[in-house]
Amino acid sequence: MNASISAIEQLLLELPDLDWITDESRVTRLSQDFSWFSPVLTRQLKDKRADVVVRPRTEEEIRAVVGACARRNVPITIRGSGTGNYGQTTPLAGGVVLDMTGYNAFLWVKPGVARAQAGIRLGELEKQTKPSGQEMRCLPSTYRSATLGGLFGGGFGGVGSINYGPLGAPGNVLGIRAMTIEADPQMIELRGPEAMRMHHLWGTNGLVLELEVALAPAHPWLETLVTFDKFEDALHFADKLANAPGIVKREIAFFGAPIADHLAQLAAHLRKGCHTVLSLVAESCEPAMLQLAEAHGGTVSYRKTAAEVQKSNRTLMEFTWNHTTLHALKVDPTLTYLQSGFVPGRHVEQIIEMEQLLGGEVMMHIEFLRNVAGLMTCSGLQLVRFSTEERLAEIIDIHLAHGVHINNPHVNIVEDGKAGGALPPEVIEMKKRFDPMGLLNPGKLRDWPVKGAPAAA
Amino acid sequence: MNASISAIEQLLLELPDLDWITDESRVTRLSQDFSWFSPVLTRQLKDKRADVVVRPRTEEEIRAVVGACARRNVPITIRGSGTGNYGQTTPLAGGVVLDMTGYNAFLWVKPGVARAQAGIRLGELEKQTKPSGQEMRCLPSTYRSATLGGLFGGGFGGVGSINYGPLGAPGNVLGIRAMTIEADPQMIELRGPEAMRMHHLWGTNGLVLELEVALAPAHPWLETLVTFDKFEDALHFADKLANAPGIVKREIAFFGAPIADHLAQLAAHLRKGCHTVLSLVAESCEPAMLQLAEAHGGTVSYRKTAAEVQKSNRTLMEFTWNHTTLHALKVDPTLTYLQSGFVPGRHVEQIIEMEQLLGGEVMMHIEFLRNVAGLMTCSGLQLVRFSTEERLAEIIDIHLAHGVHINNPHVNIVEDGKAGGALPPEVIEMKKRFDPMGLLNPGKLRDWPVKGAPAAA
Repeated sequence: MNASISAIEQLLLELPDLDWITDESRVTRLSQDFSWFSPVLTRQLKDKRADVVVRPRTEEEIRAVVGACARRNVPITIRGSGTGNYGQTTPLAGGVVLDMTGYNAFLWVKPGVARAQAGIRLGELEKQTKPSGQEMRCLPSTYRSATLGGLFGGGFGGVGSINYGPLGAPGNVLGIRAMTIEADPQMIELRGPEAMRMHHLWGTNGLVLELEVALAPAHPWLETLVTFDKFEDALHFADKLANAPGIVKREIAFFGAPIADHLAQLAAHLRKGCHTVLSLVAESCEPAMLQLAEAHGGTVSYRKTAAEVQKSNRTLMEFTWNHTTLHALKVDPTLTYLQSGFVPGRHVEQIIEMEQLLGGEVMMHIEFLRNVAGLMTCSGLQLVRFSTEERLAEIIDIHLAHGVHINNPHVNIVEDGKAGGALPPEVIEMKKRFDPMGLLNPGKLRDWPVKGAPAAA
Repeated sequence: MNASISAIEQLLLELPDLDWITDESRVTRLSQDFSWFSPVLTRQLKDKRADVVVRPRTEEEIRAVVGACARRNVPITIRGSGTGNYGQTTPLAGGVVLDMTGYNAFLWVKPGVARAQAGIRLGELEKQTKPSGQEMRCLPSTYRSATLGGLFGGGFGGVGSINYGPLGAPGNVLGIRAMTIEADPQMIELRGPEAMRMHHLWGTNGLVLELEVALAPAHPWLETLVTFDKFEDALHFADKLANAPGIVKREIAFFGAPIADHLAQLAAHLRKGCHTVLSLVAESCEPAMLQLAEAHGGTVSYRKTAAEVQKSNRTLMEFTWNHTTLHALKVDPTLTYLQSGFVPGRHVEQIIEMEQLLGGEVMMHIEFLRNVAGLMTCSGLQLVRFSTEERLAEIIDIHLAHGVHINNPHVNIVEDGKAGGALPPEVIEMKKRFDPMGLLNPGKLRDWPVKGAPAAA
C-alpha cells in the first residue's frame, strides 16, 4: 500500500536541498498525532506511517515538492504539529508527510486581523499580536505547539469560542492562500466562505499556505478555579457565568467529580471529589464573578492575575478542552473520551440527565461555547472508563437517544466525524479543483479511498 | 405645592458663592427633559418646575447645598443634562434642581474600568478612555450631552447593549460614591450589587457623586445602512447579524418602513419606503456582514469607515435608540412612541405578528440587545401615530395580550415604568438610608408622594 520506494528515492534525488526526514523513528513519530486518546483509532492506525517526511521552509520549496509528488503520483499528507486527535495527519497510504512547521513566518497584523504562514505556532502568533492588544479569537489548549494551519485544517475552536463560536463561524477566518496539488501547482487566494470550504477537511482538499484570521481584543485575564460540593450548583454557576453579558470571559470549563482528581498538577488546589469550574474572566469583572460564585456556594481555590500567569508561564488554558483529556489519560491510561454537543437552552438539563444515567462510567467535562448561530451551549469532552468498543458504541447510542449530538472522535474518515455525513457539493468541488489527482491524504474522504501503490515514475 | 420662597431665599443667602440659576426661563428649561415625546407626560408635567437651580462644582459645594436643603426641608431633584424621557428630573414639588453638569471631572482609567464624577458627559468620558483603546460598554444615543450620572440614574443602556446587556447587568457598573440627604450629609462608597440599588431610580434614593464603570475594547467601527424591499428580509438579516458570533458589533437597529422616511438627514441614502438595518460592526468583519446582507437581498446604501466617522464627527449612533424617536418627531410632531421588550428566541416572530396587527399605526423601530440573562432579544421603540390617550392604552394592551412586554414611557412614577411594580426591599432600604427625610424628587416613588409645601426654616 506504500508508495513505490523508487518514487520516494527519486524525490530525494530531485530535491536534495530540501529538509527530508528519513530516520525511521522520526518518520514514525511524524506520522502520528494524539489519536492514542482513542483505543479504536490506536488499533486502526498502529501500522500507518509515511515513507518520508519533508519540512519545507519557503513557498518555492513547497511548490517543488508538491509538483514532484504530483508528477510521480505520490500521496501527500499535510501536517502541522500533530496535535489532532483523529489521526488526521496519519497517512493511510504512505507517501510524503509534508510537515508545515518550517513554513512559519508571521506576515502582518492590523486592527482586528492578522496574517501568517500556515506553519506558525499559535503561541508564537499571539506573541506577535499581543503588542497591539490583540489575541486569537479561538485558541486550542495545545496552542504552544499547534500550528495555525493545523487549527484550520483539523481543529474546531477552543478557548475563546465562548465568545466567537467555532472557528468556522463567518468572520473568524477572512481568507487563505492555497496551493493546488498538480504537476505545476497554482497558488490561489480564497476569501470568506470560499476559504471555509477547506476548513476541518484534514488537508484533504487543498494545501493551505497562509491564513488571515480575525483577532479579539486581549483583556488581562484572571484565571480561577471555583469548587463546589454539588454537581448542579457548579454547573448552574458555570452556565450563569457563561451567559452573563456584563462579565467578559475567554473560557469556562466545568469538571464534574471525579475529573478534578485526575488533574495531578492542580491537586494542591482541588479538594478530592469536588466539582470544579475553571474560568478566565477579565480582571475588571472579578467582583461580579465572585458575587455569582458566592450565590452558588462556590469557593475560589485557585486565583492568578494576568501578571502572575505571564510571569509563571503557566496557564489554566492548558487544563481545558483536550488538555483535560490528556492530563486524565496520563493518570489513568484506561480512560478514553467523547465529544458531544448539547442542545442550546436545554444543555444544562441534558447534562444533568446524562450524569444521572452514566455517572461513574462517563465523567462530565463540559466546555461552554457559542454555536455557529450564536447561541450559548456546551460541548462535552466526557472522559469514559473504557471497557470494550461495543460498550463505547452503546454509550454513544445512549447519548444520541437523549438528543445529545456526538462528534465521534473514534473515527478517521472526515464524513464520520464532525462533518456528520456527506460533504456539501462546494467542498467536493474544492477537492476536484485543488486535488484533481486525489493525492491528498488518501483514505480520509469516503469517495477517495486508498488506492493500490502508485506506479513508479 | 412649591417650597416656601423664604426657604429658597435663605439658601441663596447662606451659600452666595454657589452657581445659582434663578432666571425664570432658564429654571423652566432646566426643569424639563424629553418627556415632550409623550403627549400624556406633556399634559401631566406642563406646570412643573423648580424654584431654583444650583450647579455645584465640587463635592464640598454639593455637600453644602444638600445640608442646607435638608435643614430647611427643601426638596431636591437631581439632574444631568435632561436627556431622559419620563420627566425623571422634572420636580413635582418645586424646590431645588441640583444640576450635576458642573461636577464633571474624569478621575482615572485602567484596563477595563474608568471612574469619573457623575456630571461628566459621556462623550467626554469616551474621549478620555479612547487613548487606552477603550470605550463605554453602553452608550445612549444622547452621549454628546448626556451625563454618566444621568445614564445611571435614569437610563437603561443603548449602543453596546447588544454585547453587554443593559447597564444593570452585573459587571457593567463596579461602584458608586453616593451622598446621603441629611443636615450633615455622609459620603459612602457602594460596590457591585449594592450600588445597583440606586440604578434607574431617577435620583430618588441617593445622590450619586462618582461612578466606576466597566469599559469595552474599542474597535474601529464601520457604520452602514443596508436597505431591503421586504420587512421580513431586513428583520432576519438584523437578527442573524446580531447573533453571528464571528461578527463583532456595537449596534444593530431595524427600521421598518416608513420610519426611514422620517430620518430627514439620511434621506439621500434611504430610498422611500425601504426597510433599513443600521449597524456598527468592526471593520475587520465587513466581508462577513456583506455576505449576510447579500444573502438576504440587502443593498448597502451608506457606508462610513471609522476614520470617516471620526473626521466628519457625524455618526449613525445619533440615529438610534431614542434619537430615532427624536428625528421622527421633528418631522411629524403628531407621533409618539412605545418601549417594548420581546421574548428572547420568539422576538422575530413577535415583531412580525405585531407588524401585521398594527402596521401603519405603529411603526417598527427595533433595537437588538442582550437581556440581563445574556439572551439576544429586541427592544422596540415603536413610533405611534397618536390619536387619543385611550387608543394609546389600547395599543399597549394589544402588545401585552400578545406577550410583548411594555416599559411604559408615558408614566412618571418609578414603579409604573421599567421597574414594573413594587420596588424590592433592598431598594426601599436604600431610600430610607440615603434619604431619610424623603426630600429627593418627591412624587416619583409611590410611597413618597408630594407633600404640602415645606415649612420655612
